[in-house]
Amino acid sequence: MTDNAAKKRIVIVGSGFGGMAAAKALKGVDAEIALVDKTNHHLFQPLLYQVATAALSPADIATASRALLRHQPNVGVLMAEVTGVDADRRLVHLAGGRELPYDYLVLAIGAAYSFFGHDAWAEFAPTLKSLSDALSIRARLLSAFEKAEECGDPKLIAKLLTFVVVGAGPTGVELAGTIAELARSTLARDFKAIDPRSARVILCEAGPRALSAFPQRLSDYAAEALRSLGVELRLGEAVNEIDADGLFVGGARIEASNVLWCAGTEARPAARWLDAEAARNGAVKVAPDCSVPGRPEIFVIGDAASFSDSAGAPLPGLAPVAKQQGHYVGRLIKARLAGGADAEPFHYRNYGTMAIIGRSRAIADFGRFTLTGFPAWVTWSLVHLMLLVDFRSRLTVYVNWSWAWFTYARGARLLTSEARDDSG
Amino acid sequence: MTDNAAKKRIVIVGSGFGGMAAAKALKGVDAEIALVDKTNHHLFQPLLYQVATAALSPADIATASRALLRHQPNVGVLMAEVTGVDADRRLVHLAGGRELPYDYLVLAIGAAYSFFGHDAWAEFAPTLKSLSDALSIRARLLSAFEKAEECGDPKLIAKLLTFVVVGAGPTGVELAGTIAELARSTLARDFKAIDPRSARVILCEAGPRALSAFPQRLSDYAAEALRSLGVELRLGEAVNEIDADGLFVGGARIEASNVLWCAGTEARPAARWLDAEAARNGAVKVAPDCSVPGRPEIFVIGDAASFSDSAGAPLPGLAPVAKQQGHYVGRLIKARLAGGADAEPFHYRNYGTMAIIGRSRAIADFGRFTLTGFPAWVTWSLVHLMLLVDFRSRLTVYVNWSWAWFTYARGARLLTSEARDDSG
Repeated sequence: MTDNAAKKRIVIVGSGFGGMAAAKALKGVDAEIALVDKTNHHLFQPLLYQVATAALSPADIATASRALLRHQPNVGVLMAEVTGVDADRRLVHLAGGRELPYDYLVLAIGAAYSFFGHDAWAEFAPTLKSLSDALSIRARLLSAFEKAEECGDPKLIAKLLTFVVVGAGPTGVELAGTIAELARSTLARDFKAIDPRSARVILCEAGPRALSAFPQRLSDYAAEALRSLGVELRLGEAVNEIDADGLFVGGARIEASNVLWCAGTEARPAARWLDAEAARNGAVKVAPDCSVPGRPEIFVIGDAASFSDSAGAPLPGLAPVAKQQGHYVGRLIKARLAGGADAEPFHYRNYGTMAIIGRSRAIADFGRFTLTGFPAWVTWSLVHLMLLVDFRSRLTVYVNWSWAWFTYARGARLLTSEARDDSG
Repeated sequence: MTDNAAKKRIVIVGSGFGGMAAAKALKGVDAEIALVDKTNHHLFQPLLYQVATAALSPADIATASRALLRHQPNVGVLMAEVTGVDADRRLVHLAGGRELPYDYLVLAIGAAYSFFGHDAWAEFAPTLKSLSDALSIRARLLSAFEKAEECGDPKLIAKLLTFVVVGAGPTGVELAGTIAELARSTLARDFKAIDPRSARVILCEAGPRALSAFPQRLSDYAAEALRSLGVELRLGEAVNEIDADGLFVGGARIEASNVLWCAGTEARPAARWLDAEAARNGAVKVAPDCSVPGRPEIFVIGDAASFSDSAGAPLPGLAPVAKQQGHYVGRLIKARLAGGADAEPFHYRNYGTMAIIGRSRAIADFGRFTLTGFPAWVTWSLVHLMLLVDFRSRLTVYVNWSWAWFTYARGARLLTSEARDDSG
C-alpha cells in the first residue's frame, strides 16, 4: 500500500469519540494512519435517541469521517469491517480477506448491548447503537401508532401502544422520557380512532434506582420527572423473558409490541482478538498507558477498554473518557515515534456528567455541585450543541430543537412504506 | 366506521401535491374524508434529487401528513396501499382486504417511471420517486467512491466512477449536474487512492435536446451549463440495453456501476382500476372538470391524469398542475355537497416553469420572459424555499443550502454498513 516502507503504520479501528480523537491527536505526524470503521461517519451518539424518536435527522448528528479528516493528509479513511487481529504478525484482518499491517494499533471499537446470555431476546428487543438502529426504532415507534389507528381491536391497540424500555441508564431514561412526550404531546391530536395519550411507557430496571451512576438525590429527581411525564418506573424488577408479544418482568406479564433494550453493555470481540484478559463485561483490561499488557504497541480505549483509576474502580463508558483516552494515546504514539521518553499514565478528568429526562428536565453532576430541572436542561442543551462537530449541524440542531420546544412538533416523523414493512 | 351514516364519504388516494391540495380545499366541509397513502408523509418531490445527492435530509423535504392536516378534523389519514377500485360498488380496495366506501373519489396517485417495456432494466437502473429511492441512490453514489478508493484495480475504478443518467428532463438534468458537483467539488479532496474529479457523469437523452419542455434557447443554455460542470451530454442516443455492469447507448458500450433512470413516466394502475380510457403514457383521460367520463363522482388529478387544455395538448406532469387540480376538485366537491350548480371547467394557470442545473445555474421560463444563470438560480431557490410546507423545513433547508453554497460541503454524506451492503 505504501511506497515508503520506512513510514510507521498506525491503524485506528473505530471512528467514534475515541478513534477520532486519536486520529486528530496524530495530526502532522509523519506516519501512515488508517482509520477503519464499518460506517463512513463519525456519530454523535449522545443524541442518537433523538433520531430514534423523530426529533432529529441522521445528518444532524453524523458527519462523514473523510470530511472531518480532510485536512490531515496522513490519515486514510477505510470503510471496512474488522474481523480480527493477528497480534504476533501485527496484522488487522478485514472482512473479505484483506489484511492491514500496523506498527501501532488503536482499538476504539466501543461496546454492544448485552442480553446477559439471552441472545434470543435480541430479535424482539432492538438496541440503539447505530444510525440504522435509530431509524429502525423510529419506524417501529411511528408505525405502532399507525397500526393502532387502523386495527379497531382494543386488545391489540393496548398492546401496540405499550412501550417497554429495559434498563434505566442514561439511554433508557432518555428514550422512555421522549417516547412519553411523543405520545402525550407531539402525536396527541393527530389520530381519530386512538388517543395517543393513552399509550403506556414502562421503564424497567433490575437495580434499585434509575441512573445509578448519579448521586441518590439526582436519581430521585429523575424518577420523579419520569413519573410526571407519565412513565411507569419499575425498579428492582428484572426481565425474565421476552417474546414477540411482550415480556415477563419480575414474574408479571406485559403485552407489548415494542420492547427496547438499553440494559448492560458488553465489549466482546477485542479481548478475543487479542487473547487478552477481560473484565466481567468483556472489556480489555488495559495498563495505565491504555496499552494491552505485554503488547505495548496495542492500545484499547473507550468502551472497549476496562481502565481502572487510582482507586481501582473502572472508568465509566462515557464519551469524555473515550475522547480523553484517544487524545492521550494519539499523543503517546506521537511521542514514541519522536523517540520520546515514557509517558505519564492516563488520567481521566471528570468535568461532570449529565442526563436528560425530557423537555426542560435534566440532571447534572459536577462533583462539587449538582443541577436539576430547567437549569440542568439548559446546561445540557448548550453543552451538547457545542460538542457537535460542525457548525452546520449545530445550526440545524438548534433550529430543530427551538422549533420542537415551542411547538412540541417533531420534524422527522417519517415512515416509508418499506420501513413499515421492516418493522413487522 | 362512521356513526353518522348521512355524512358523505370522500376518499383521496395519494398525499402528494394533488391529494394534499384537495384535502385542504375541503376544510370545514361536513363530510368524512380519508386521505390514503402508502407512506405517512407529504413529500416535496422537486427537491428529492437533493436527498439522493446528500445535500438534504429526508426530514427537510417531507412532513407527516397527520401533522399537516391536524387542524382539519374532517380528514382521517390512513397509511395503506390501495390495490384497486370497484367503481360500481363505490369501494376502494386496500392491501390486506379492507374496503373503503366512498361517495366521491379523488385519485392523485402520481406516476412511475417507465422502462418502455424493458422492465428487466429496473433491477440495474434505479429511479427516483420516493424517500426510500433517494436514500438508496445516495448509498449507491457514496459507496461507489468508497469502493473505488479500496479496490486498487484501474478498470474497476473507472467503472465505479462512471455515472450514467438516462433521460434529460428536469430530474435527469438536476441529478447529473449535482453528481458532477459532488465529484468535482464536495468529494474532490477527501480520497487518497482515487481522484473523484476523474469521475465521468454521462447524461443520455433519446430526444434531440435537454429539457425539451423549455424553449430552445434555454435548452441550449442548460446543455452548455451541464458541459461546463463536466457532464457528458449525449443527445439523440437511445438506450439499447442495461445490465449489471453498464449499458449500451446508441449502440456503444459504457461500463458503469451506476445507471439512474429518469426517462419517461407511466401512470399505469388508475386506468386499469377504473377500466377507463388512457393516454399513451397510461394516464386516465379526464373530462374538463377532472372527472372520469361516465363517473362524475371519480376524479383523477396530477400525473395520474391526462388533461387536455383548450388547444388539445396534455398538461405537463408538474407540481403546480397537480396542486391546482387538487384545489379545483376539492372546491368542486364542496360545491356539489352544498347542492351548487355545475362548475367551470378546470383551467391551468401557468406561472412559469424552472429547472436547476447546479450551483448558481438554472433556467426559468415565464412565458413573456425567460431567465438563465444566477438570476434564474436565485429565483429557483427563493421559490422552492417558499413552497416548502413548514417553517422548520424552510429554516433547515436554508441553513443547509447556505452552508453548501459557501463550503461546497454536503451534510448528509451518510452510509451505514447496511446501506453499503444493499448497494451491492
